Amino acid sequence: MAVRAAVAGASGYAGGELLRLLLTHPGVEIGALSGNTNAGQRLGALQPHLLPLADRVLEPTTPEALAGHDVVFLALPHGQSAAVAEQLGDEVLVIDMGADFRLKNAADWEAFYGSPHAGTWPYGLPELPGGRAALEGSRRVAVPGCYPTAVSLALFPAYAAGLAGTEAVVVAASGTSGAGKSPKPHLLGSEVMGSMTPYGVGGGHRHTPEMIQNLSAAAGERVTVSFTPTLAPMPRGILATCSAKARPGVTAESVRAAYEKAFADEPFVHLLPEGQWPATASVYGSNAVQVQVAHDAAAGRIVAISAIDNLTKGTAGGAVQSMNIALGLDETTGLTTIGVAP
Amino acid sequence: MAVRAAVAGASGYAGGELLRLLLTHPGVEIGALSGNTNAGQRLGALQPHLLPLADRVLEPTTPEALAGHDVVFLALPHGQSAAVAEQLGDEVLVIDMGADFRLKNAADWEAFYGSPHAGTWPYGLPELPGGRAALEGSRRVAVPGCYPTAVSLALFPAYAAGLAGTEAVVVAASGTSGAGKSPKPHLLGSEVMGSMTPYGVGGGHRHTPEMIQNLSAAAGERVTVSFTPTLAPMPRGILATCSAKARPGVTAESVRAAYEKAFADEPFVHLLPEGQWPATASVYGSNAVQVQVAHDAAAGRIVAISAIDNLTKGTAGGAVQSMNIALGLDETTGLTTIGVAP
Amino acid sequence: MAVRAAVAGASGYAGGELLRLLLTHPGVEIGALSGNTNAGQRLGALQPHLLPLADRVLEPTTPEALAGHDVVFLALPHGQSAAVAEQLGDEVLVIDMGADFRLKNAADWEAFYGSPHAGTWPYGLPELPGGRAALEGSRRVAVPGCYPTAVSLALFPAYAAGLAGTEAVVVAASGTSGAGKSPKPHLLGSEVMGSMTPYGVGGGHRHTPEMIQNLSAAAGERVTVSFTPTLAPMPRGILATCSAKARPGVTAESVRAAYEKAFADEPFVHLLPEGQWPATASVYGSNAVQVQVAHDAAAGRIVAISAIDNLTKGTAGGAVQSMNIALGLDETTGLTTIGVAP
Amino acid sequence: MAVRAAVAGASGYAGGELLRLLLTHPGVEIGALSGNTNAGQRLGALQPHLLPLADRVLEPTTPEALAGHDVVFLALPHGQSAAVAEQLGDEVLVIDMGADFRLKNAADWEAFYGSPHAGTWPYGLPELPGGRAALEGSRRVAVPGCYPTAVSLALFPAYAAGLAGTEAVVVAASGTSGAGKSPKPHLLGSEVMGSMTPYGVGGGHRHTPEMIQNLSAAAGERVTVSFTPTLAPMPRGILATCSAKARPGVTAESVRAAYEKAFADEPFVHLLPEGQWPATASVYGSNAVQVQVAHDAAAGRIVAISAIDNLTKGTAGGAVQSMNIALGLDETTGLTTIGVAP
Repeated sequence: MAVRAAVAGASGYAGGELLRLLLTHPGVEIGALSGNTNAGQRLGALQPHLLPLADRVLEPTTPEALAGHDVVFLALPHGQSAAVAEQLGDEVLVIDMGADFRLKNAADWEAFYGSPHAGTWPYGLPELPGGRAALEGSRRVAVPGCYPTAVSLALFPAYAAGLAGTEAVVVAASGTSGAGKSPKPHLLGSEVMGSMTPYGVGGGHRHTPEMIQNLSAAAGERVTVSFTPTLAPMPRGILATCSAKARPGVTAESVRAAYEKAFADEPFVHLLPEGQWPATASVYGSNAVQVQVAHDAAAGRIVAISAIDNLTKGTAGGAVQSMNIALGLDETTGLTTIGVAP
Repeated sequence: MAVRAAVAGASGYAGGELLRLLLTHPGVEIGALSGNTNAGQRLGALQPHLLPLADRVLEPTTPEALAGHDVVFLALPHGQSAAVAEQLGDEVLVIDMGADFRLKNAADWEAFYGSPHAGTWPYGLPELPGGRAALEGSRRVAVPGCYPTAVSLALFPAYAAGLAGTEAVVVAASGTSGAGKSPKPHLLGSEVMGSMTPYGVGGGHRHTPEMIQNLSAAAGERVTVSFTPTLAPMPRGILATCSAKARPGVTAESVRAAYEKAFADEPFVHLLPEGQWPATASVYGSNAVQVQVAHDAAAGRIVAISAIDNLTKGTAGGAVQSMNIALGLDETTGLTTIGVAP
Repeated sequence: MAVRAAVAGASGYAGGELLRLLLTHPGVEIGALSGNTNAGQRLGALQPHLLPLADRVLEPTTPEALAGHDVVFLALPHGQSAAVAEQLGDEVLVIDMGADFRLKNAADWEAFYGSPHAGTWPYGLPELPGGRAALEGSRRVAVPGCYPTAVSLALFPAYAAGLAGTEAVVVAASGTSGAGKSPKPHLLGSEVMGSMTPYGVGGGHRHTPEMIQNLSAAAGERVTVSFTPTLAPMPRGILATCSAKARPGVTAESVRAAYEKAFADEPFVHLLPEGQWPATASVYGSNAVQVQVAHDAAAGRIVAISAIDNLTKGTAGGAVQSMNIALGLDETTGLTTIGVAP
Repeated sequence: MAVRAAVAGASGYAGGELLRLLLTHPGVEIGALSGNTNAGQRLGALQPHLLPLADRVLEPTTPEALAGHDVVFLALPHGQSAAVAEQLGDEVLVIDMGADFRLKNAADWEAFYGSPHAGTWPYGLPELPGGRAALEGSRRVAVPGCYPTAVSLALFPAYAAGLAGTEAVVVAASGTSGAGKSPKPHLLGSEVMGSMTPYGVGGGHRHTPEMIQNLSAAAGERVTVSFTPTLAPMPRGILATCSAKARPGVTAESVRAAYEKAFADEPFVHLLPEGQWPATASVYGSNAVQVQVAHDAAAGRIVAISAIDNLTKGTAGGAVQSMNIALGLDETTGLTTIGVAP
């Protein structure tokens, strides 16, 4: 019997991607769709690619609208999820696609978000060590950020195997949908086409402490991350280029073996054959993660690169994957590793 | 029980899109995959977005490779399909995604393709008047060209209802995948990004007689088409802007009524609400057709615009839709009207 | 001795392109730069590509700021130019890059813009018959719209030579900068990349009466235009595909001869050799117009296609060209036919 | 009096960009244009954006064709420049835009290029310490690689000032023109649009030893570089994100001061105001370099980012700048810091 799911924030990019996935999920019935400024509008005007839902009308995001569902997905601006979640019963599975419940360290939250910490929920990245166990049966899930998903999956095997030094350097390119649907001058098509540009340089991006949290857990010691995000002229996708010093004795073979072991049984993470490199186009619209790793002997570094779709595995697909685990469904239900290309 | 399908030409864009669709088609088991220059290669190297098939290896396109299947899809250069089809039994469903069997008029074929006409197969555009009946139970299907799909669906209602004059003018923009995967200088990313450019201007494009065939059939009289294709800086999608003189007495209301009637029961063709216009991004990876129509009273013309994904509804999705009808399956099996956007 | 030029509206795309051109114009000294909402900001933050002007600060658009210049360029929202122009002396050359003074027919203005007609100024398209004479010595210039520039240059030779029927059909693709720098959801990079979509379909686009005005003048009789603009996934450029019925007796040769004659002495309009077609990438950042024409005998139509850079020849380059003529400078000063490609 | 310049390899992207710049260079007269496979073709067919040269025909690259010029630019595949240069007199200024004469260390050349080392010419990056002196009066110039230009300018001030540790990490995104005009499947528009993908990962890219050479010279000790190039969906531009450990005592202020000092008198390198970040769109078609730098105290790293146009400052503009110095012209002649945007 299908569970009934509500989506709060159905007019944005995360909400739209979630609906795209839920429409073909055999175990989910789509319930209430809500928004704020767009309440009252037809979904056909807001998400014209979702034709089966074109005539659905957005409700305001209220406790009444979200009541009576088995699962509630929250795609809200940060800081708003706690108030909504409190009004939902403990037996309802609440999946927060925002940042509010990802960080364990309250000081990190306050330093990067400037508001009181709302708490910590089970973290929705099942591929991390112990990741699945934390989600099974849970009724609260914090979906990881898109960059931390790409970076953590690229680097955790090196840390878990003790191969990498504690100072990671990450440069990641993201498609523009990661910046949301709210119109701003620097996100205009005229500005982004033909342009690569960084932002949040020097440690200021809010996803940095989340990466540190994940990699430090894998390493068993404090890892620092120098993170530079860049905006790329494409609608979707993240390519994360991650590196760290190779510890003494590390070889190309030991690196490869660690990654093969880490992903051997993973349904969504695909370690590419040697010589082939990840491309965001190959995971467009898919929940797959393409990973490749190299040992640069001359520079003494391990270089690990991952490609994800920021809206699928990086947000909505990750949310569905976690929902499946929490509900005891097959983890891959409603998700694929088939991209739309070219 | 699933039918077993072979794909000849699995390394190209049409073949790749077909495999993407067949992977989630509940009634199809993917059999032999063949190629020519790429025979012997892993599909993972050729179609890196199709992770579930990554370890499949392409066979040469031979009768032996294609034998033993219920359905054989041909994605071959034009002129090659007849020889392959002859070696397949009459009971095998052969679906030609090339041009060879689309045209009824041998003189048209010879004028535009410069080779002998191979024949005419049932035409795979079920939305045309009489379209479904021609496909039911057939064991041969000629999949329409991508441009004729977009143009015929945009204009046939106006002709079928007797509203439009016999001289159609069509300007269509296509994504670059329509030009195939064979590397040519003018198709390099450096050349196409940031550029719109026409080709085949003045009546020379090979899809012109196919449009004329379809629209003349709908009109019941000879229709001419002035067709200008343009190459747009996007990987997929066709936007077809089509117009014809409005016959005397035509009104905005009569035009709208004709289109509403034509598409009322169509699962894939979506007449947009008034005021909303088709966008190729909204049908990315979907089998949907978005159509809108206007009556320009000042210029005395009916303007009909359609958006399709050239690889899905325009090629591989159209092929699957026709296969479903030919085999007696539900026409929509394995196909969706859900696009991947943004 | 250089003339001193002010730019009202220096923070937008038209203003920025104008400054790019004026920076290398040997006869112009850049004076006041003004804006409205951006007054007080450094130009380096608003137009980061104009490094030589990075430290200039925008003034508010006031009579005081614009006083004391030989030339004043207005890049203002429509309806605002008249009030500003009135406060400038008759001896000042005022060049309006907006729509306010383009149309001769007040009823057309009111129907398409919904406000009282401000008047008509000499029209800045010197390539039209009589175009240069109207500009020489003038102290007021109405710069043409970007679409009318592309369409008028593509079609006027056919009309001036009496070759074309009076019902023109135009489909044009424009880069997103034509829609301006004001952030709107449908102009986000996430929305426009990968998408072609029409707008203003059915006769509603405000540039339609301007095209009709130009083509009717060339034809010596009333011409109608069915105009469909489309938004293309590129920052700049217009590709205009224009056609009209060929009058009896027209041949490919007579068409070619008419175009060769029309553009023989034009410094910026380049009729391509037969077999080569315009591409917006080839005129990127240049004041050139690439034109090609075909006679489609089967469809009985003349098809003329032009490519321009909407911001250069379509706006700011056209403005500089007209300024040069009005001031008695060499028409090509500060302008090139050299594009930036790939 | 103008010098007469020949261009060997005029049909490619580097050659085309060089011609674009030389066309407006007041001190250069364009002489012979040569090619290999394209000899005999009109330049208008090969470089349709260079309208003033449309009727020029390419000659074969022979000593006779290149004789009688003051300057000869070589835009040839690597390994071919030495043979051509030998046949030109010592008094001719030969500017090699290829790799052949960049490296000082023959073993590096052989390891990365697999052929005998041709020698070392004065290196055309005048902004490096001692860079101008090496070029003044020289009759041989090795133009730097595009990536080394971007990376060396981003990082050398940190090394020259003794602020940075000896292990640099560089991730750079390049537009597709950097991969040349020779058609290959992975460079098709269909493949590159919407995709970010790395290549040459793990130390294999041929530009790596050139970066090491430059940074080691600035540091006065051996610097290693972990270099990951990525292909970005844009025709032009390089964004280089470079970092290294901050040495003890380094502060944001000391880093900023070092960069301000390094670039204070540079005509083309522009250190952006704090808070503004480089964007490739802002240097499109310009010889400018935008640089910004940050001190990430938490990660203990200096992060320096540069944006260049790979074809202008990264190749042809750098070549012209070096030519100017070698000939005793003003270094900025024929070059601008004005980009074409949006």
